[in-house]
Amino acid sequence: MASNIKMDNNPAFDRIPPWVKSKLRPIAIEKIQQVYDWVENECIPAERIYKAQLEGNRWKTPAIIHELRQKAKAQGLFNLFLPNHFEESPGLTNLEYSCCAEIMGRVYWAAQTMNCHAPETGNMELLAKYCTPEQKKRWLHPLMNGDMSSAYSMTEPDVASSDATQIGIKMEITDKEVIINGRKLYGNCQYNEEMQLFVLMGCSDPNNPDRFRRHTTLVVPAKTKGLKQVRNLTIMGYDWAPEGHGEYIYEDVRVPVENIILGPGRAFEIAQGRLGPGRIHHCMRLVGQAERAYELALVRCFEPNKKPRGKFIGEFDSNIERIAEMRMTIDSMRLVVLNAADTMDLHGNKAGRYAIAQSKIMVPNALMKVIDEAMQIYGGQGLTQHTPLPELWTYARFVRVADGPDSAHRHQVGRDQMKTAQAFRERAAGYTKRYKELCKKWNLEPEEFWGIV
Amino acid sequence: MASNIKMDNNPAFDRIPPWVKSKLRPIAIEKIQQVYDWVENECIPAERIYKAQLEGNRWKTPAIIHELRQKAKAQGLFNLFLPNHFEESPGLTNLEYSCCAEIMGRVYWAAQTMNCHAPETGNMELLAKYCTPEQKKRWLHPLMNGDMSSAYSMTEPDVASSDATQIGIKMEITDKEVIINGRKLYGNCQYNEEMQLFVLMGCSDPNNPDRFRRHTTLVVPAKTKGLKQVRNLTIMGYDWAPEGHGEYIYEDVRVPVENIILGPGRAFEIAQGRLGPGRIHHCMRLVGQAERAYELALVRCFEPNKKPRGKFIGEFDSNIERIAEMRMTIDSMRLVVLNAADTMDLHGNKAGRYAIAQSKIMVPNALMKVIDEAMQIYGGQGLTQHTPLPELWTYARFVRVADGPDSAHRHQVGRDQMKTAQAFRERAAGYTKRYKELCKKWNLEPEEFWGIV
Amino acid sequence: MASNIKMDNNPAFDRIPPWVKSKLRPIAIEKIQQVYDWVENECIPAERIYKAQLEGNRWKTPAIIHELRQKAKAQGLFNLFLPNHFEESPGLTNLEYSCCAEIMGRVYWAAQTMNCHAPETGNMELLAKYCTPEQKKRWLHPLMNGDMSSAYSMTEPDVASSDATQIGIKMEITDKEVIINGRKLYGNCQYNEEMQLFVLMGCSDPNNPDRFRRHTTLVVPAKTKGLKQVRNLTIMGYDWAPEGHGEYIYEDVRVPVENIILGPGRAFEIAQGRLGPGRIHHCMRLVGQAERAYELALVRCFEPNKKPRGKFIGEFDSNIERIAEMRMTIDSMRLVVLNAADTMDLHGNKAGRYAIAQSKIMVPNALMKVIDEAMQIYGGQGLTQHTPLPELWTYARFVRVADGPDSAHRHQVGRDQMKTAQAFRERAAGYTKRYKELCKKWNLEPEEFWGIV
Amino acid sequence: MASNIKMDNNPAFDRIPPWVKSKLRPIAIEKIQQVYDWVENECIPAERIYKAQLEGNRWKTPAIIHELRQKAKAQGLFNLFLPNHFEESPGLTNLEYSCCAEIMGRVYWAAQTMNCHAPETGNMELLAKYCTPEQKKRWLHPLMNGDMSSAYSMTEPDVASSDATQIGIKMEITDKEVIINGRKLYGNCQYNEEMQLFVLMGCSDPNNPDRFRRHTTLVVPAKTKGLKQVRNLTIMGYDWAPEGHGEYIYEDVRVPVENIILGPGRAFEIAQGRLGPGRIHHCMRLVGQAERAYELALVRCFEPNKKPRGKFIGEFDSNIERIAEMRMTIDSMRLVVLNAADTMDLHGNKAGRYAIAQSKIMVPNALMKVIDEAMQIYGGQGLTQHTPLPELWTYARFVRVADGPDSAHRHQVGRDQMKTAQAFRERAAGYTKRYKELCKKWNLEPEEFWGIV
Repeated sequence: MASNIKMDNNPAFDRIPPWVKSKLRPIAIEKIQQVYDWVENECIPAERIYKAQLEGNRWKTPAIIHELRQKAKAQGLFNLFLPNHFEESPGLTNLEYSCCAEIMGRVYWAAQTMNCHAPETGNMELLAKYCTPEQKKRWLHPLMNGDMSSAYSMTEPDVASSDATQIGIKMEITDKEVIINGRKLYGNCQYNEEMQLFVLMGCSDPNNPDRFRRHTTLVVPAKTKGLKQVRNLTIMGYDWAPEGHGEYIYEDVRVPVENIILGPGRAFEIAQGRLGPGRIHHCMRLVGQAERAYELALVRCFEPNKKPRGKFIGEFDSNIERIAEMRMTIDSMRLVVLNAADTMDLHGNKAGRYAIAQSKIMVPNALMKVIDEAMQIYGGQGLTQHTPLPELWTYARFVRVADGPDSAHRHQVGRDQMKTAQAFRERAAGYTKRYKELCKKWNLEPEEFWGIV
Repeated sequence: MASNIKMDNNPAFDRIPPWVKSKLRPIAIEKIQQVYDWVENECIPAERIYKAQLEGNRWKTPAIIHELRQKAKAQGLFNLFLPNHFEESPGLTNLEYSCCAEIMGRVYWAAQTMNCHAPETGNMELLAKYCTPEQKKRWLHPLMNGDMSSAYSMTEPDVASSDATQIGIKMEITDKEVIINGRKLYGNCQYNEEMQLFVLMGCSDPNNPDRFRRHTTLVVPAKTKGLKQVRNLTIMGYDWAPEGHGEYIYEDVRVPVENIILGPGRAFEIAQGRLGPGRIHHCMRLVGQAERAYELALVRCFEPNKKPRGKFIGEFDSNIERIAEMRMTIDSMRLVVLNAADTMDLHGNKAGRYAIAQSKIMVPNALMKVIDEAMQIYGGQGLTQHTPLPELWTYARFVRVADGPDSAHRHQVGRDQMKTAQAFRERAAGYTKRYKELCKKWNLEPEEFWGIV
Repeated sequence: MASNIKMDNNPAFDRIPPWVKSKLRPIAIEKIQQVYDWVENECIPAERIYKAQLEGNRWKTPAIIHELRQKAKAQGLFNLFLPNHFEESPGLTNLEYSCCAEIMGRVYWAAQTMNCHAPETGNMELLAKYCTPEQKKRWLHPLMNGDMSSAYSMTEPDVASSDATQIGIKMEITDKEVIINGRKLYGNCQYNEEMQLFVLMGCSDPNNPDRFRRHTTLVVPAKTKGLKQVRNLTIMGYDWAPEGHGEYIYEDVRVPVENIILGPGRAFEIAQGRLGPGRIHHCMRLVGQAERAYELALVRCFEPNKKPRGKFIGEFDSNIERIAEMRMTIDSMRLVVLNAADTMDLHGNKAGRYAIAQSKIMVPNALMKVIDEAMQIYGGQGLTQHTPLPELWTYARFVRVADGPDSAHRHQVGRDQMKTAQAFRERAAGYTKRYKELCKKWNLEPEEFWGIV
Repeated sequence: MASNIKMDNNPAFDRIPPWVKSKLRPIAIEKIQQVYDWVENECIPAERIYKAQLEGNRWKTPAIIHELRQKAKAQGLFNLFLPNHFEESPGLTNLEYSCCAEIMGRVYWAAQTMNCHAPETGNMELLAKYCTPEQKKRWLHPLMNGDMSSAYSMTEPDVASSDATQIGIKMEITDKEVIINGRKLYGNCQYNEEMQLFVLMGCSDPNNPDRFRRHTTLVVPAKTKGLKQVRNLTIMGYDWAPEGHGEYIYEDVRVPVENIILGPGRAFEIAQGRLGPGRIHHCMRLVGQAERAYELALVRCFEPNKKPRGKFIGEFDSNIERIAEMRMTIDSMRLVVLNAADTMDLHGNKAGRYAIAQSKIMVPNALMKVIDEAMQIYGGQGLTQHTPLPELWTYARFVRVADGPDSAHRHQVGRDQMKTAQAFRERAAGYTKRYKELCKKWNLEPEEFWGIV
């Protein structure tokens, strides 16, 4: 059944490229419209309410978030991110979800009202994929229901975290329990009461000759004895409250073996499975963040009070060109993200590996610059709490390291590409052979270019 | 009927994004494979043959081109560019043709062997769109048949050509004939015998109050008396033989009124109609040019003779990152071009205006840098005739001004965007209103941020 | 008398270019060494002490600052910024001070320990230049003595502040007093007890036909009735405590006419005089900030715990190239700043106008990227409070708008340059004339290139 | 004795930074003025004469060059590049010569009229430094006298030339002669009669355990039997006539042992000595090339025929900002070059190594973009022979690989920098120690940041 919603001249759909529009099913069209209305009516106008409620009470989730989450759930806006091949999924493809996620990105906590925020999304996908029914009941269902929140704990201070095989936190597995000792950076903040579990990757079998079989992933309840948050990590000065980024010590932390996911030594299997759409959810949202910054810049361009030398900011043709540049950058990055989502839909997460990496590297870099430009158009006020621009920028900056520095991803892409060189060398040799035949035919002396295949 | 060609692990299709692959019809799959094989087997190996035949005889089309054109026509590879809504079209959509054009781009004269080169493509589209059957017979059919070549003549030395209303060459229209006086820059070179007609835009009614009704487009046969080529214009030092870029004087050049296209004063109508897919054919091909440069870079990366400090060039991780950057840049630009083509297919040329401009601005800039990087990977030899890189680069550089400098296009995009600001200002006012309501509900004092909507 | 200090292989002097070293007088060599030792021994190791003392008491200047200021004053390290043509100056040239300021930049509050921080420096220079002896006694001497701190108040929320003639805060001047009404953004934070006076620019004569005679500058004591701080403005999320950036309302604020500087209507004269070395002090310090970031990056490059794929970060040749790029960028920006300082020394502030603008535009942009790169080399930790990098970056970002967005400065430079075009057009005409003479001599036909002078 | 020339408001001196002006001795002031007048009056107006004389006779030095060289020599403008520590020097420091060289750069062959062009300059410096009096008489004196020209032959097709120890051309040294076999790329073109000798580096002792003692440098007269030019190498399509870049085969080429410079196996000693000012002569000239492009852009900005949408190109504030950007880029690059020249003057070539590398990497990259921007301001004509811009650009592009790709230089700089890391790590450890002392004093618990020194 077709949707009654018209996509033409509808701001909820205006930025979606034609090829994507033509693939949206009625259910998706409905959801996109709903998400758009939600963000437009419930989130953007509430931005300062959220901030006011956090004031002086930074580690408590603001009341407005609780209310909005209840409403969003009631409206069927929860967990849209979970791809439609999971039984728990509300039914969208990755491509369709991308269109929703972009809109969510316009307010940095909007995804949270729809239970589509990191690290929950990654955790829920992981739990949906690898947990036993019993485990799902304990952890996945409350998370999907929005009854608690969770953290993902991987980075460590003492190793090169972009190389996961170096993860060193010790997990001693006995018959009944796992005893954990070590340190972790990041993972949401324990100060917040709603944060109830950690998905933790650690080293349980350091001497296993196969270095991809040394690690185990398990769930640690937040209140477990011996687990201590040392401090909250600020990101570019932001405390990121009320979620935060904790720094933790594990001292003889004990959890039952039932908390192990998939089995001991299988953490890399799980990590592999985690390399899916969750890795570009932030890219999808970043497109929306950049759109928000762009809209704010346009608003400022025609602010009647702000007319240097008597012209609107938007009448200077240097700014006209800047706006064009911002517009085009956002649109090209959207194409990159949507292509990655679509590739996963059509060929699976593994086939999407390159497209995912492309998104992760290109999108935050490019869109960070768009937001930076929007701040410059604002002048001094663009950097203050008068606009959401500083937070939008900081989030974009954060994701450039969140999953390893972009150089690590670029390196991986480059190494994969280098493996394709041999085929081109063979083709090049073939060209030369054929060239020599053609020389005979056309009665020419073959030219030799030294040092060139 | 499905094509027998498998797209998986097939280099002719490897770079095509999944969403595009899924839209290709069997006829397109066949053509893409054919074009790929053609360029791979007939064009790349013949690059130096082409050059050798031009040596010492620069204004004569090389014999190999004549032969290849005959063969390509026989194989049904002619005129693929003409979109399938024209009766003369071989049947591809713009999106499908894009995939062909990219492959053509790998050798800069390959499009010519398939009669898909500029300015013929633009001229043929114009003639197909606006000519009478009689005119088509005289000009369109020989061009489509590859029996002659043509030029497009618009730029002038004495005006700001990015503003077409300034075009000043005089056309006096009498009962029987049009008398033309003035100067033109560009338009292919008369020195080449095969160049037989100019499509010329001039000013026939300078006092018409509507400045978009002052100009007329007509056909001038190349040998007409009074039409004189002053010199060939080099582009970054290249003579661009055997087509060239002429600089012309018109002195009392007379052509019959039958040569007027569409009617006197209708040049802007025609120009408008010309703003279609032809404007991004070069972008489509540029993607292929960049791929070629990329392949050459990969080939060099594992050249056994070239191991500075004992490592292959491709083993330096600075180069690994560079290759990744090149790969991602090309792929993102391809998405931009394909999206523009698809937009025209789905919604028409006019709706595609922005996407076309986006391609025209972003693609040459980005891909020029990719080719430049490939030259650096080659070192000194990368700039010599030992590789096709200098020509690939120069063509990319050329298109940055070919249709007006990119700043002119950027300006146009930016001005269109500025028109959307008002809607965002209204939405912003709505947010504030709703914010105040929410303040009441949550018992908060509304915060005022001065100078902010 | 020559200094006993050796500049060779001395880290205090290693980065100073030879031409600058050769201009340093013994007094400067002594001061540079002193400043270096001061920052190295007293400031860098105290960074976290400073932070700890601010914790929970953000609007009170930390005790360590008070102690350090006393010690620095005792060591003759106070007010080094004031150029040696002022009688109050400790005797350095701008060039010599630049070398000191760079070192101060390594810790963002180090300048404060030496009473060389903004906005004091600008205020003190202004007061030294334009105050009567009586006024100096009340305001300049306590400031120079470090007994209080001050603010500069210019930006307004309701006008385009990059155009100072739009400044609108009302000043009604009566016989005895000035009554002030309006709003201001920025200007340090009143919450801090030590901040005791505002240097305020306002509009006292709005109908004066000469729009550069409408404004007056005067001093407002911080505790004056009617002057109210609305909020502290955060910059990229930082509260910038304990100085802050206040947002203010003036409601019938009254100050005696004796507080007027130079006289009513002379604010632009003063503003003009303020366009001196104070405008690039932040650029001088930014060079040092970038050096600090660079040093931290090098430290990380050889961190034994951080070896992705078994190599030190500093062994990856992508990072080797990055470090080189950072090194060269910093060094080139230092040359730009030092040249501006030297130009002021040799030819005065007015002659230095272009060089000052060049610094203001280029330096923050370039060095912000250096610091950003240093953060990427750190990975996730580079964005947290574990390093000073986020603060270093944020300060660099801030100065890109602090004195107007960089596009405003660029615009000014560009307009000045455009005025030089006519001279080049005349020279170009001369070349053509001489070319024609040479053609005769060499028996050649002059070539005409249309549209070209 | 002071010069009578006023530097103020004198276009010959306007771009020279104050610190440099203050170091110019009267002799330098005179020379700079002379060079300026020479280029302004004799070279720029003759640009098209030069081209016209080359037409159809590309491997013969144009008559106008011969005439200008005679005049320049007569005026004392020959060999200015040779630094004043050589007895043959006309007496300028490197810094002073830089000012001259910049002016020469405004016309790409102007240096040649003053015998200051590559590769002569490098060759003359080498010969002046390492030759016996007898050798000087045979080669250096005629070169300095302008009686012949020479080539430098180092690059080879079959090795990674950025690593000179790989140079492989064979030199068999007997009692009387050296027998040479192998291939070389580059080295000026033998087709030009005036090119009379090659300075050639080859491998004479491949088994020497010290790989820096395997190579020998010697002089090969251009007409020696067995030496054959295979082709001329084009650079970005330019034949670079009448000097060219040859590609050579050596087949049993024999030269007397008297032609060996310094002695067998000492080529690296010589190469080391060549790493002086000659390596940045092109950077000095590039500054002038960019100035020329800049002047041309300004001329175009106020071309009355070119007013898109009714405004001069120079009235668009996007172009105003572009001109500012170009201006600042050129000026900052000049500072980099002048600092390198001054460093060599003050501390010698070896101490200047980093500053030389900094110039070589930064200057061509930055100025290439300036010239590119100038071409865009011109639009289509900017790429044709109507302006010298394409040649200016191509030269800038060429130098990015001429002495090895810039990544090779960057790598060298980065590796040197990495060696400094250890000192910073030690200082960082010292900061921590002192921090702990301060904690005691201030009664604070030392904070530990894991993974951070």
